[in-house]
Amino acid sequence: MNPKVQYIARLFQKTSFKALENYCLTRLWHKLDNDEVKLVPQQYVNRHVNKYALTDVYLPQFKIHLEVNEPAHYDSLDRILADQIRKMDIEQKTGHRLFVIDCRKDLFEIHQEIDSIVRLITEEIVKQKQQGTFKPWQPELEQNPNYWKAKKKIQEVDEISFKSIEDICLLFDADFAKTKRGFLRQGAVKYPKDINYIIWWPAEIKRSGWINTFSDNENIINESHLDNVKRSSHYNNLIKTTELRIVFFHKKDVLGNVGYKFKGVYEIDRINSNPSDGLFWKRFSSDFTIA
Amino acid sequence: MNPKVQYIARLFQKTSFKALENYCLTRLWHKLDNDEVKLVPQQYVNRHVNKYALTDVYLPQFKIHLEVNEPAHYDSLDRILADQIRKMDIEQKTGHRLFVIDCRKDLFEIHQEIDSIVRLITEEIVKQKQQGTFKPWQPELEQNPNYWKAKKKIQEVDEISFKSIEDICLLFDADFAKTKRGFLRQGAVKYPKDINYIIWWPAEIKRSGWINTFSDNENIINESHLDNVKRSSHYNNLIKTTELRIVFFHKKDVLGNVGYKFKGVYEIDRINSNPSDGLFWKRFSSDFTIA
Repeated sequence: MNPKVQYIARLFQKTSFKALENYCLTRLWHKLDNDEVKLVPQQYVNRHVNKYALTDVYLPQFKIHLEVNEPAHYDSLDRILADQIRKMDIEQKTGHRLFVIDCRKDLFEIHQEIDSIVRLITEEIVKQKQQGTFKPWQPELEQNPNYWKAKKKIQEVDEISFKSIEDICLLFDADFAKTKRGFLRQGAVKYPKDINYIIWWPAEIKRSGWINTFSDNENIINESHLDNVKRSSHYNNLIKTTELRIVFFHKKDVLGNVGYKFKGVYEIDRINSNPSDGLFWKRFSSDFTIA
Repeated sequence: MNPKVQYIARLFQKTSFKALENYCLTRLWHKLDNDEVKLVPQQYVNRHVNKYALTDVYLPQFKIHLEVNEPAHYDSLDRILADQIRKMDIEQKTGHRLFVIDCRKDLFEIHQEIDSIVRLITEEIVKQKQQGTFKPWQPELEQNPNYWKAKKKIQEVDEISFKSIEDICLLFDADFAKTKRGFLRQGAVKYPKDINYIIWWPAEIKRSGWINTFSDNENIINESHLDNVKRSSHYNNLIKTTELRIVFFHKKDVLGNVGYKFKGVYEIDRINSNPSDGLFWKRFSSDFTIA
């Protein structure tokens, strides 16, 4: 199946338990009628320290978020005020625009609201194309290491997602054979062009006792092990390291797609790491340029 | 919630487990962008005696059926031929048109196919409106007894669905008080304007031992009872009756909407009825005109 059809069909499916959100989302997509536009579900947005929001749909090319509020959102004044503060927080923090569809309205009005967002986006596409800044949605490329190898610069916002460790090695000219250890697979490989870097693919799920936990905003990774001895010896081995880790997070996204997703370059956090909690890695760059 | 939003949102939800059917259906609806058009899921179509089809979506105003064939439909030559015969059967038997979307195609082609159906329907709407034959989709009216009372003629194809027995009584000027029997509710009431008719609302679910089974094409109703004595005494009481039954079938439709749906007028089938199987009623008219 075509990767775009698959992605969008899954996105629709994912929201189907919320009938009105699904209705608005399907209308947005079909009225836009432009498969160069990318829709991202449940986009993480930082609000304050320890406070974040997940917006229903995000259009990264236009920095536009969409929220579909089912009637329950208007049940109490408290809830209404909380939603307004949330909208302000998101817009101020990100500089993005957040549009809210009020589902208490009738069909005609809901259609009008979505259609006006569609018009706005359509105008932005024209503008971006005139300015030469439009980046069409190309899921095939996001998954193609050769494309990124030619491009050299990789960025977290590009949502690069590879299908295999072999693809990661291909991008960096790393030796795929070195990632194998009998039946086991290494969790990392050296970057052959610069000894300061390690290419690392931590997994969301536990593997051989290793536990890798990403913070909600993905700025911090906690690398730990179930076994006390292994955890503290790993700590002792690495606490003084100056190695930098180019990170591909192996996880299932909200749509159920599994992949190795480029998250940026991380360095060790010496203050927070300790033998009982394990190592903490903090992101110091969301980009990397391949030599 | 607006009944149209509710109906369509449920229709989308209902198909969400088939990702591609859902994708095509949502596109058809949003590109048509006309809430006077009715979509009916899983329409029953008679093919031959004992053979029928359920089409994915039916547009009754245009006598158009839509089938969305997932790639598995093309796995074998047998399956492809069976689908072609099915299409011919449906079109010949009903005089309707059946369009088949082949989901092996890419997004652009799938869009083209749906868009050409959208154009066709849009042209038909214009034509029907010019000829004064267009019947807009009006779910509020389908459920309003006063509307049908003023209209006088009720037809099965109008998909009349009432919310309560009170609404049925209102339509026929029958005495709602007579439908109550203590805490129980009668299953029928006399039609006050013509002693030949009984107004009957058999239920899909068992009630006090009564079992009402509709044949797939709804031409035959089997009225039976779990208890042997009650079943055979009911048979003996009614086998010689000349009463005609105006039938409202109380059931949950494929979208989960419950209602009393007008199915036509039924007469007793003396040949097939017997004390052990119970009574059989056969439809002799799909219409009824209120005096």
